Amino acid sequence: MLRDLHKEEQLCRQKVLVVGGVAGGASCAARARRLSEEAEIIVFDRGPHVSFANCGLPYYIGDVITKEQDLLIATPELFKNSFNIEVRVLSEVQAIDCTQSEIVVKNLKTGQVYREQYDSLVLATGSQPVRPQLPGVDLTGIFTLRTIPDSQLIKEWIAESRVKEAVVVGGGFIGLEMTENLTRRGVSVTIVEMLPHVIPTFDPEMAVQIHDKLLANGVNLCLGAPVIAFSHSSDNTKIEVMTESGKQLTCDMVILTMGVRSEATLAREAGLEIGELGGIRVNDQMQTSNERIWAVGDVIEVRDFVTGEWTLAPLAGPANRQGRIAADAIFGRSRRFRGVQTTAVCQIFDMTVASTGISEGTLKRCAERGNRIPYEKVYLYPQNHADYYPQATTIAIKLIFSTEDGRILGAQAIGGEGVEKRIDVIAMAIQMGASVYDLEEAELCYAPQVGSAKDAVNLAGMVAANILQEDAPTVHWDNISQTESIILDVRQPEEFATGHAERAINIPLDSLRQSIEDLDREREISVCCEQGKWSYYACRVLRLNGFNCHNISGGFKNYRALKQLEQQ
Amino acid sequence: MLRDLHKEEQLCRQKVLVVGGVAGGASCAARARRLSEEAEIIVFDRGPHVSFANCGLPYYIGDVITKEQDLLIATPELFKNSFNIEVRVLSEVQAIDCTQSEIVVKNLKTGQVYREQYDSLVLATGSQPVRPQLPGVDLTGIFTLRTIPDSQLIKEWIAESRVKEAVVVGGGFIGLEMTENLTRRGVSVTIVEMLPHVIPTFDPEMAVQIHDKLLANGVNLCLGAPVIAFSHSSDNTKIEVMTESGKQLTCDMVILTMGVRSEATLAREAGLEIGELGGIRVNDQMQTSNERIWAVGDVIEVRDFVTGEWTLAPLAGPANRQGRIAADAIFGRSRRFRGVQTTAVCQIFDMTVASTGISEGTLKRCAERGNRIPYEKVYLYPQNHADYYPQATTIAIKLIFSTEDGRILGAQAIGGEGVEKRIDVIAMAIQMGASVYDLEEAELCYAPQVGSAKDAVNLAGMVAANILQEDAPTVHWDNISQTESIILDVRQPEEFATGHAERAINIPLDSLRQSIEDLDREREISVCCEQGKWSYYACRVLRLNGFNCHNISGGFKNYRALKQLEQQ
Repeated sequence: MLRDLHKEEQLCRQKVLVVGGVAGGASCAARARRLSEEAEIIVFDRGPHVSFANCGLPYYIGDVITKEQDLLIATPELFKNSFNIEVRVLSEVQAIDCTQSEIVVKNLKTGQVYREQYDSLVLATGSQPVRPQLPGVDLTGIFTLRTIPDSQLIKEWIAESRVKEAVVVGGGFIGLEMTENLTRRGVSVTIVEMLPHVIPTFDPEMAVQIHDKLLANGVNLCLGAPVIAFSHSSDNTKIEVMTESGKQLTCDMVILTMGVRSEATLAREAGLEIGELGGIRVNDQMQTSNERIWAVGDVIEVRDFVTGEWTLAPLAGPANRQGRIAADAIFGRSRRFRGVQTTAVCQIFDMTVASTGISEGTLKRCAERGNRIPYEKVYLYPQNHADYYPQATTIAIKLIFSTEDGRILGAQAIGGEGVEKRIDVIAMAIQMGASVYDLEEAELCYAPQVGSAKDAVNLAGMVAANILQEDAPTVHWDNISQTESIILDVRQPEEFATGHAERAINIPLDSLRQSIEDLDREREISVCCEQGKWSYYACRVLRLNGFNCHNISGGFKNYRALKQLEQQ
Repeated sequence: MLRDLHKEEQLCRQKVLVVGGVAGGASCAARARRLSEEAEIIVFDRGPHVSFANCGLPYYIGDVITKEQDLLIATPELFKNSFNIEVRVLSEVQAIDCTQSEIVVKNLKTGQVYREQYDSLVLATGSQPVRPQLPGVDLTGIFTLRTIPDSQLIKEWIAESRVKEAVVVGGGFIGLEMTENLTRRGVSVTIVEMLPHVIPTFDPEMAVQIHDKLLANGVNLCLGAPVIAFSHSSDNTKIEVMTESGKQLTCDMVILTMGVRSEATLAREAGLEIGELGGIRVNDQMQTSNERIWAVGDVIEVRDFVTGEWTLAPLAGPANRQGRIAADAIFGRSRRFRGVQTTAVCQIFDMTVASTGISEGTLKRCAERGNRIPYEKVYLYPQNHADYYPQATTIAIKLIFSTEDGRILGAQAIGGEGVEKRIDVIAMAIQMGASVYDLEEAELCYAPQVGSAKDAVNLAGMVAANILQEDAPTVHWDNISQTESIILDVRQPEEFATGHAERAINIPLDSLRQSIEDLDREREISVCCEQGKWSYYACRVLRLNGFNCHNISGGFKNYRALKQLEQQ
């Protein structure tokens, strides 16, 4: 008991060094102070700031956020005065000496190099934008965006070079945010993306649904187009971007938003275990392979909550959680990190795109690695609020769930208002191990302006439950072509006339009961409507009459998305 | 086995009668058809419509919804053509003859009375607006709102009588929606409410926070004022509303929105079991005390999911769920109703008010009945999105949780954008039995426009967890006055100067460490700031230095709300 007290006292009096002062690092330091008043806590950051809002940078460039100081969540002074934490900015940690429990720090202002001893060390070194080794990638006018100084360089370039045309390489969330903000500033943007669709983290048939929105806002899309080189134009005033297919785009500025890479050099050189994805390996208390060293944020690999596999998730929310957990562990508390769900959102123009859990693409890659999770998916297109109230808009939802127990695996949603609300609800459901039956029964807010008596989340659960309970087994367009089934479209003839799937025959639901004996009982029937609701009703009629039929999930809306993808 | 098949066939060929064609009744009938093509299904409704959007009626009066037909979710024709369900409108079911398994129906058009036999009967008779037996309550110009014809009468009265001033009696959600819509039409509204605050389902210190919004939009409030009588003015052109305290309000129109009462007469007269709250008692498959009769929607009593007690919950979402469950039960499926959480939302002007689970008031009433659930509460005032992004607004949140295991019991929120999103997430959490620790760890959408790295939901969980883990035990303003504690306000002196609690002393967090030895170690310290965040940091400093201190939940913001309530 005496010894324990002694140990506790020792824990309290630790010297804790934190490398990196944004998100995870800052959270860790602040939490550490709340656990011990006696500890010495020092935060080092290579840049001129700590704890800045890097998710705000695109909006700072777009002049939505007008003051640089608004991006500063906390200053070294605040850390000192309120938390008694020392922050050393412009201080690059160059090495870790594990045997001495020391770090080697270079003061970037003075050039002085010194050593600092630690009892516990926290690495929150974050990530760096990917900058592929392509010819010309370092030319003037080609930027990445990670820090406030990065954003200032971009702002200056836009003003001084009177940028009219920009190329954004990479159509992920940050690329889209940059696109919106450059457009806002009157710059004409072309997105160049290797894949045939934007948002690589989304499944293609979902992501493709935002292309029209981008085009309608004057954005040019150059898809399925890996970049192979950059050069200056002959008169040296422009940048040329070359794609694999030989396309050449001329612009005044290039922004590379091709993802990020864990900044794990320090850890690697110190001999800490690094994962296959290049991030630092930690246990569920954020401890690295060295018992005195912890790591948090973009620099680490984390467990995917849904698949159980290692993944990278450069997200601010989990980084903050990890920071607090590391501090808890350092001071002897036992909280554990439960993994990440990769919940993410992006607003672009008046569209919101959000997802949580895993995509179908991730499930397929897991299966290739031998981690096979049996799943099914549904598509639906509910309204964001009661359709009898003005200005209801459609949300396209893809829900992925386990066919073993109905557990929700992931969801993607695209639309206007109310998109991220549904994803947040499903995120909470996934966290709690909920099934599609739980979504069916969710009791959510309903007023005509904000929801429906059967909310989009309920509908997603119902459609999925209908499959699991075999009330309406589903089929997807990409499987139908391989079968010999009848494709029965139950929309009204005037809708059918505006477009329909190949081979489809049209019997509106209203006439189905009368026409039922005309249908071939020996053949499988795949039933379609505009979005999968009336076809579900039709499926019930057919199944109760002994037909072998399947509902085509997402109906003709899903068909159009797939066609658009084919034509990309 | 043969016998089972026979029974199944019998089930499929049932004659199912549904009394009441809105929400629960309509859902039940439609679901019934999806379970059997052979059943005979007839829906009876006293009114001229089935399946209309009664939550839209205030907005129809406010001309936000301009066409009556927009309120019709389904018509008798649609039921017939798409679902092969017969709907008989203007058909009043007058009695149930349980021994004969028949109902007595009056055709309100022809006056004809006839009997209809059933195998299964579903009562979805809904509820009626409360119309208290007060002198003058039936005068012309005094309205309730439940049906499309009701709303038409109100619309006509507004136009024909050129209504300038209206009194809305009852400040619940429907009262507030009517207030907004009448205001929208240029009518000056006075809300007369028995309680000292609007929204009786909310706890007072939360509800009081919308009073300023109402006043700012020109609404007059007459609170703590039970109505005792109505009369016509001497010249017969106006209505006078008298309150208990002798106040007399003159207006052109009165809307009674004093809640609803289960329409259980039919069930009572048939001898079905009725609960203490006046609703039909059903089991978790919606079956009444008569095995051939089911009941769904506003007419029944339901189990509160959190307390386990019987309650009334006249909500469209649960009614729809109940309808489907009753249909399942009728056709031999075994789905069960899990109870209600009473999730509800109301938008009034640019404010959103939402809640889920139970209020502190409900907990206190439960305790009085011997159902004691140990609980604690926290108040917080986070931003709806990152505060570095323009136009962040504050959400006032009250979270109530079990002190035994941290289970979430209820939440109330008031603010602008993003309010119902947080309540929906917490609703899902409550459904899944989540604790405040789960809220802490929720991984929600974060982009600067829609959330924060530490979302409001996370913060609510953190504040609560800090209490349960004794990192910052809490105290509430209404308890402090009874203690001899020091009230320590850690805001900056200039904030403190603009207003502070009686007896409070001011030491800003920045100076606390230096001044700590000036504080009396023998006395308990209650720490306050603007909203409870900096005082939490101060509490940590003090507790780690051996002081006995508590954080005042919700800080000075909560203090102001309580003062406002006192002055009401």
